[in-house]
Amino acid sequence: MSAEVLAIGATQVPYFRNKAFSNLMLDCQHKLLDLVNAETGSKVLFFASSGTGVMEACVDNFIQKSDKALVINTGGFGQRFVDICQRKNLDVHDAKYTVNEVINYNDFKQLEFDALFVNACETTTGRKLDIEQSGKLCKHKGALHIVDAISAFLSDPIDMQLHNIDALIISSNKGLALPPGLGIVILSPKAIRNVKQSPSLYFDFKESLKNMQRGQTPFTPPVSIILQLQYQLTQLTQIGISNLIAQRADLVNYFREKICHLPLKNYVNDLSNSVTALSPLAQNADYLVEYFERKFNLILTPSAGDLSKKVFRVAHLGHVDKAHFDVLIEALNEFYQERLS
Amino acid sequence: MSAEVLAIGATQVPYFRNKAFSNLMLDCQHKLLDLVNAETGSKVLFFASSGTGVMEACVDNFIQKSDKALVINTGGFGQRFVDICQRKNLDVHDAKYTVNEVINYNDFKQLEFDALFVNACETTTGRKLDIEQSGKLCKHKGALHIVDAISAFLSDPIDMQLHNIDALIISSNKGLALPPGLGIVILSPKAIRNVKQSPSLYFDFKESLKNMQRGQTPFTPPVSIILQLQYQLTQLTQIGISNLIAQRADLVNYFREKICHLPLKNYVNDLSNSVTALSPLAQNADYLVEYFERKFNLILTPSAGDLSKKVFRVAHLGHVDKAHFDVLIEALNEFYQERLS
Repeated sequence: MSAEVLAIGATQVPYFRNKAFSNLMLDCQHKLLDLVNAETGSKVLFFASSGTGVMEACVDNFIQKSDKALVINTGGFGQRFVDICQRKNLDVHDAKYTVNEVINYNDFKQLEFDALFVNACETTTGRKLDIEQSGKLCKHKGALHIVDAISAFLSDPIDMQLHNIDALIISSNKGLALPPGLGIVILSPKAIRNVKQSPSLYFDFKESLKNMQRGQTPFTPPVSIILQLQYQLTQLTQIGISNLIAQRADLVNYFREKICHLPLKNYVNDLSNSVTALSPLAQNADYLVEYFERKFNLILTPSAGDLSKKVFRVAHLGHVDKAHFDVLIEALNEFYQERLS
Repeated sequence: MSAEVLAIGATQVPYFRNKAFSNLMLDCQHKLLDLVNAETGSKVLFFASSGTGVMEACVDNFIQKSDKALVINTGGFGQRFVDICQRKNLDVHDAKYTVNEVINYNDFKQLEFDALFVNACETTTGRKLDIEQSGKLCKHKGALHIVDAISAFLSDPIDMQLHNIDALIISSNKGLALPPGLGIVILSPKAIRNVKQSPSLYFDFKESLKNMQRGQTPFTPPVSIILQLQYQLTQLTQIGISNLIAQRADLVNYFREKICHLPLKNYVNDLSNSVTALSPLAQNADYLVEYFERKFNLILTPSAGDLSKKVFRVAHLGHVDKAHFDVLIEALNEFYQERLS
């Protein structure tokens, strides 16, 4: 996190049920809508929660017993949408794909569904999904296009109008480089018209929309993170979204080129700018994770379950630059020099 | 918030899926269990959420379609438990009382219920509920005693064994004097044995309990607030809970004595140490709220809805001392001097 964001974390939490905080919330809304090119009439809702809370909130507010959900499931976070639906005994079509299996969106043209849930980036593998295709499918079917952009936001291009997105799920602690604890959903006018009665009071979009008209939330929001958000959004909108994405792509390509001579294979074909999942050819991935923490004090993000031996991940999110990656590149070179010489 | 807590808010958020953060979480658990005198085998669960999120989580995890809930409802936060149950079409007995109506817990001895929900302090009015009585009733009935202590924690005596509490709901931003965004529930062994299948994945106590065995959470917790929590709990446990409550009572009595000559009436008979709700005899309460903010830059907590003209509130929570209240006492004296002379 930047020094400026950290400094805001050290200020007293102000009283928030007043005009000053309402204006701050409305300013955050305005800037977020701008960054994702949302249609006029779109709204932003803020929750004290992680990204998963908002994923579940979207199921609660858009899928009722009589509705059908389609989940494009290419890994752990696609599976999470399926798990949430199944937990609630909802009618869900689990479109499950192996890690690099091609998705033909035309396959779903005959399927009946009211909402499609997809991860813009499947964070467990770093696979970038083609949200333009899923958006077109939803337009064709008249279904809601609900996109988890928790890791993709500010890394890969996300354009709510171009990609026909109705609900965009983001969180404070990935691309926004803020502390965890703020979950955000951006709703299109079509999504707003289609909000159902939520079984959850805490994640009730109708109540939240009503409160957000005056820049407030039904329940206490994570005030400090929202103060930090406003600062961050001011910086980001000044740079502009296309510059931000270009900078991120440049950074990611720098890292990927610098390590392409090493015996590390990209785990996925469709690479997101937010994270690189790498398969070491000669060692187990969890060995590298453990070794790099012990030897270099560097955290390679481990994978969970079956993937833990196959894949480790390098996140490209947040407040990082080339110098940051040079440290890792050097460590990787040192690790392999000892083993390949 | 204290300078030390604020300083922690200005530090980088560490990677948290490791042993160091697990140990920190387990230390927070240990200290919280100590502060509420929890039975051996009790556990603490942490969520990125406001207190309301955890209130709903308790309904999700303890009340199923076949169960019956009893809510002692003396105001807005009692009503919130009722609203949550009704939203989910659960069988709830709404035991509704007017602001100072006496509650006879023997009335419920013939009623069938699996869990009793009560607010240790009804924050909208500052009424302190007799959780010893509701605890005895639950023991007699074999029902779970689920207590919202969001405002009462660290202000009024809360003893999980003495008060026979099975689930204690607290949040970061009241007595703990931390930023909002961390919801906490402390579960007794009996509560743990009675956790049902939750319809919410995000607030799933079974999964949370499993993760908490090693000091982790299923989903990203509000890491910065948890770092601040550990610092705060270290200070609090050093002072000791009985000293903390005595200090708070002393502070509250100081304030109440200093204003007893003014035309302000206590709104409730059973006063909590966490908040004082005052009815101005000669003006509307919302007039004072507006006037004090404009004239003195002092925030008197306004009431919502019907209460807004009748009652304003003075919170006694968090990092406050007598000097803090002297400012308000002086302003109140000035306000009434102009009007009564």
